[in-house]
Amino acid sequence: MSYSPLIGQLIGSLKRLPGVGQKSAQRMAFHLLQHDKQGAMQISESLAAAIENVGECSKCRVLSETSLCEVCNNSKRKQDQVCIVESPSDVQAFEQSTTYDGRYFVLMGHLSPLDGIGPHEIGLDILALQLDSGEVSEVILATNPTVEGEATAHYISEMTKKRNIKTTRIAHGVPIGGELEFVNGSTLSHALNGRSVVAID
Amino acid sequence: MSYSPLIGQLIGSLKRLPGVGQKSAQRMAFHLLQHDKQGAMQISESLAAAIENVGECSKCRVLSETSLCEVCNNSKRKQDQVCIVESPSDVQAFEQSTTYDGRYFVLMGHLSPLDGIGPHEIGLDILALQLDSGEVSEVILATNPTVEGEATAHYISEMTKKRNIKTTRIAHGVPIGGELEFVNGSTLSHALNGRSVVAID
Repeated sequence: MSYSPLIGQLIGSLKRLPGVGQKSAQRMAFHLLQHDKQGAMQISESLAAAIENVGECSKCRVLSETSLCEVCNNSKRKQDQVCIVESPSDVQAFEQSTTYDGRYFVLMGHLSPLDGIGPHEIGLDILALQLDSGEVSEVILATNPTVEGEATAHYISEMTKKRNIKTTRIAHGVPIGGELEFVNGSTLSHALNGRSVVAID
Repeated sequence: MSYSPLIGQLIGSLKRLPGVGQKSAQRMAFHLLQHDKQGAMQISESLAAAIENVGECSKCRVLSETSLCEVCNNSKRKQDQVCIVESPSDVQAFEQSTTYDGRYFVLMGHLSPLDGIGPHEIGLDILALQLDSGEVSEVILATNPTVEGEATAHYISEMTKKRNIKTTRIAHGVPIGGELEFVNGSTLSHALNGRSVVAID
């Protein structure tokens, strides 16, 4: 016996979720149909509504229902300070844990020429226009500390250098609460090179 | 900044999936909206279709779009041999790996008096009617080898004993491919007690 067609289709579609394989999809489908039809309906409807209405902020490319997102539309935040991140979840991470009050620019990925992802695909032409207009006074590079993230940060720093715009990179080093013993070598050498003078009162 | 309302709703609803917390839900939502809107639409539609059309087989309680499921409606399968399992995924597991050609009865859970789950909730009144009608000649107990599963199996065996119906329990022991060293104690004592005579040609 295979699944009845609708259940088979449901399992097949749930497998498109990241990190969900055949077994998990099956568990999810049976759970929803057996115990939580209301939840299933809610997922179905909220997905449909999000697909219909959520697009990108025209200024920072974060996912947003309005043409300008909440941050870009907030005059209390420094619109001339731009933090460049790879994904909307990075924006969320900054917002949840820091008091950063500038705005963001979301690349939606990183440079990866082998996969056909060049400057245009990650919106660097839009960023260039914003840099040219003189509305940006500081660019904070907060791409991931991976090879691709570093390459992307380097590429953007070349763009800002040409335009004489102040550019900073977030600090990399030993994570707070981490133990030196378990930190990998390149993090440790980053931490050493990035050491700062301890102020004595 | 919190999420825009629709994204927040989507993340909230995805958290109703089993095994999905805040972080995974966020990752799923962003993945679908950024990279796979088509997949999102597919999930939304297949969920809606399944909620609308999938119910229970009137004979064995498995999830099915038709009032009799494929197995119960198949005259080539022994309709008088009933394998009792806890969930539709168990049916799937049997169908995928065994050549069992009887039918099933799905409890959709197990007896759990503290949670208010009694014989009626797991469909034992329906099973009793089927046993009374004389259409069942063997009951195979395939509930999980957990405390609740064993209690449920015991309860059902009392029902079949009263009606003089042959009742069997699937074997429990060392899993094929497993190593004795890593098998837990109660499995090993089950395996010892359930030992069978080796036939010598």
